This record gives sequence, structure tokens and C-alpha cells, in this order.
Amino acid sequence: MIQRLTVIGVGLIGGSLARALRSADAVGEVIGCGRSIDNLQRAQELGVIDDYSRDPGEAVKGADMVFIAVPLGAIAGVFERIRGHLSEQTVVTDGGSVKGSVVADALGAFGQVPAWFVPGHPIAGTERSGVDSSFPELFQSRRVILTPVAKTDPDAVTRVRRMWEAVGSEVTEMSVTHHDEVLAATSHLPHMLAFGLVDALARMQTNDEIFRYAAGGFRDFTRIASSSPEMWRDICLANANALSDMLARFGEEMTELSETIRRADGEALLQVFGRARAARDCYIDGVDARNGGGE
Amino acid sequence: MIQRLTVIGVGLIGGSLARALRSADAVGEVIGCGRSIDNLQRAQELGVIDDYSRDPGEAVKGADMVFIAVPLGAIAGVFERIRGHLSEQTVVTDGGSVKGSVVADALGAFGQVPAWFVPGHPIAGTERSGVDSSFPELFQSRRVILTPVAKTDPDAVTRVRRMWEAVGSEVTEMSVTHHDEVLAATSHLPHMLAFGLVDALARMQTNDEIFRYAAGGFRDFTRIASSSPEMWRDICLANANALSDMLARFGEEMTELSETIRRADGEALLQVFGRARAARDCYIDGVDARNGGGE
Repeated sequence: MIQRLTVIGVGLIGGSLARALRSADAVGEVIGCGRSIDNLQRAQELGVIDDYSRDPGEAVKGADMVFIAVPLGAIAGVFERIRGHLSEQTVVTDGGSVKGSVVADALGAFGQVPAWFVPGHPIAGTERSGVDSSFPELFQSRRVILTPVAKTDPDAVTRVRRMWEAVGSEVTEMSVTHHDEVLAATSHLPHMLAFGLVDALARMQTNDEIFRYAAGGFRDFTRIASSSPEMWRDICLANANALSDMLARFGEEMTELSETIRRADGEALLQVFGRARAARDCYIDGVDARNGGGE
Repeated sequence: MIQRLTVIGVGLIGGSLARALRSADAVGEVIGCGRSIDNLQRAQELGVIDDYSRDPGEAVKGADMVFIAVPLGAIAGVFERIRGHLSEQTVVTDGGSVKGSVVADALGAFGQVPAWFVPGHPIAGTERSGVDSSFPELFQSRRVILTPVAKTDPDAVTRVRRMWEAVGSEVTEMSVTHHDEVLAATSHLPHMLAFGLVDALARMQTNDEIFRYAAGGFRDFTRIASSSPEMWRDICLANANALSDMLARFGEEMTELSETIRRADGEALLQVFGRARAARDCYIDGVDARNGGGE
């Protein structure tokens, strides 16, 4: 049970965690913090938070758990502003999609990665943002990755793990570097492809017509291109190495595929498509088994 | 009203058209034709067709409308086998996703593109295939593109247009070349990206883990990678020029994006992502307006 939770950044992720912990009766009081007073008032109206402060140092006072859910580019600033305001029993965790940059930010702000800071990442979200989009079921049956470093206090990890388990998440641990590679492949790269595809089509001369004839598959495929540009700029900058490598590699694969098509190598095409279908179907089976069936 | 419809290839597309025309009371009798006797029997059991023949020449006898819904690679063979078996009032149309190759096949089989042949393409489908996946609403509010050539009889075009309008589709006409370019951009390229992405991940050493951490966006994004490999091989081969150009161009874009990320150009990233989001949202608004709202 968390006595007092401070959520810094009360948007889709921060708001949903607060709602979920309330639904699970796993939190006493929730204090919100953010730059927009309108958003904080809205969060209070919605019952997501009990009270708020725009000053992170003020907001974390007396909190036993702090969840930082601001865009990656704003995390360093939050660290600076909570420094010296935490009590001994406070545990701080975050929801940033890249862990290397967050750990580097912690190192920069505190001189070392503090034992009470547990880098984390809930693998959940929608293309929407803002507290109005938050909902208590967002993290149910979703994975949360924690990436403690050598200096991290195991008790702090346990407390963060319990928080996520209370809202129905499946918690795993891995190294910072490994997390950033896995996420580059499964999340950051697909987002780049969706953004890149929609942008490429939008720049074509006949783009009006092109979007008019785009069918259902296109709609699903490009849904993630409606995600926040600022958030994704931050993610790209924070995970630049892993992501740019992967993009370059994918670019080469597409060039190769283009050559395969040009030389009409039907056998090679069948192999690529068959392998992909088998992997996709196997992945879906895995997910369905985990969620108890149904698509 | 169609008196006797022959559907050659009673799968998702062919089966759905038959079901939809029946629901709309716009067809008398439906004759199925295909290579698999099991599938034809199943289609008859399901009430999709009234009778069937495995011989296309036999199946088209007495039909006033013939719909060819076999994979692109099999269309030339169907043309060969129906040649000489059509009556004067028979109109033939097809559902192939590439029109250039179908028109070339018609030219090859008949010496010229017959006046009674109307090349067509319903922009509808799911990642499933087979008559069991067919359903009467598949074409409702979906676009159908007809690509008549200079020699095509306008009355034949009108009859095909009426058939699609009877099942709720919105019919438009464009040139063969233009159709193939638009579809390369909106359908064929996205499928290549989804197949390519899933294949690339499947080939990574830690692929088990990678698929385990793939989130909801990935699921939507890669749904189309579960489509039929054979169908997509045929589409790639049939639309090789337009598609390989587009793939090569997209490969270059990804390489560029990789460079933009590597040199940490946040402004340029914001521009790409912002343009993409605006275009996606605008496209979605358009679709929702057409369908009467709701996502």
C-alpha cells in the first residue's frame, strides 16, 4: 500500500497509473505535478489526483512513492527540481521509453544513480495523450520492464514491482542497454516506419487521392503515426544509437526487397512473406494464450 | 439484377460478393468455380453458391456476369479456359489488386482486351482467406476502382458498376497505370513494410524476447503480415515496377531518417512526425466523415 503517491506529469500514463492504483485500493493520497495548471485542475476534477502543486520539490514532500511520467526530454529537469526534497523512505521510478538516457540524467543530476531510483518502463499506451485519455485498465496484463543498475536498492525495486503488480502488470527486469535494444526493435522502429510512410505519402503530388484509396490495413498500420511528435522526437534523440542502427538496417532490407521484386524472384518473396506470417501468427498465439484468448 | 453470376475463385472476396448480392436480392443464381472440390462443397453448404463446376468453361455457361477472384498469378489461366465459352451478353470482371498485369493477361489470351471485360478492384479485404472468412458486409462503404481501357464497352462498365453499387460500394474509375501507382503506395508498400519488419525481427537472435515485449501498436502495425504469402508474391511480381520504385524510395527515406536521428536534429524530426500526424488525422477525419463517424 502506497501512502502518498506523487505523479509528476499527469497525462495518459501518469493519470492511468493513479486511476489504476485507486481502483485497486492500493494508494492513499495522490498528488499531481505538472506545468499546466489547467491540466492539473482537470485531473483533480476527474478524481485522478487529490491535490497538486506545479513545483516538483513541493509536490514530492512526504511522498513514499514518486512516479515521473513526463516526456523523456523533461526528466533531467525534474530530477534537478526534486533533488533535496525527498525523504529517506521515498522511492522514485519513471515511465520513460528509453532507459539509457534516464539513467544518464540521474547520474547528471545526483552525481551517481541514486539507490532509491528504479528506472522503469510500462509497455502500454495508446496514440492519445493527456489526462482525459487516461483509464484504470491501461496496464492490466501489460508488461512493465524495470532496469535497476548495480547501485539500486533491492527493496526499492520490490516496492516498485509491487506497485505495478497491484495494477495487474507483469513485471520483468533487464539491463538498461538490453531494454533499449529490444524497444528499438519492437516499438521505436515500427513508429518510425508508420511516421515515415504517412509522411512519404503526404509528400506525394497526388496525396489527396492516395489517402482516399487507402484501405483498412493502412488504417491499422498507420494508427501509431498519430502519436505525439514531441514525445517521439525525445525518444529518437534518447535512443539514437540503437534506433539509427536499426533504421539503417531496415532501409537496406527494403532496398534488397526492392531488388528481389525487380528481378522477379518469386521463391525469395515467398520465403520472406512466409517467415513473416509464421512469426506473426506465433506471436499472436503467444499473446492470446497470455490474455486468455480472443483477438 | 444479375440472372446468373459465376464466381471463379470462391474465397474471401468471391464468396463475400456472392453473399452480398444475395443479401441485396440482386442476383438469381450463383455458380462457383475453383480448383478445390472441398472448398466448393463448403461454399455450397454455406449457401454462398447454388452449384459449381471445377471447369471454368463449363461454369461460365449461361452466365450474364462472371467475377474472377483468383490470385493474380492464376488469372491468365482462367482467361484461357473461359475463351470460347461465353455468350454474347456475358460481362466479365475481376478483383485483382494489380490491373496492368490483368490487362496484359487479357491481351495475351484474347489477342486484344475484350470489350466485355471490365478490369476492377474492390479495395476491401482482411488478412484472412477462404470462403469461411467471407461475409456480406465486406464491400459496404468501400471503394471499388474500375479501370476500363479504350476498347471496353461502356455498357459493360455500367453493369459492373451497378453490381458493386448494389452491395454498397462506392465506384470510381481511373486508368490502369494510375491505379497501380496509387495501390503501390497505399497497400502494396505498407504490406512490404509489415512483412519486412516482422521478418527482420524474427531473424534477430533474441527474437523470442523481442516478440514478447511487442506492445499493442506493434500488433496493429503487423496485422497485415499475416496475409497470404502466395497472394503477395503474385502482387509483387505483377506490380514490380511501381512497387520496387516505391520501396527503394522508402529505403532511402529510412536511411535519411537514420542520419537525422544520428545527428540529433530534433527540429527535423518534429517536422516529419508533425506532418505525418496531421496527414493521418486528416485522413481519418475523411474516412469517418464518409462512414458516419466513429473509429
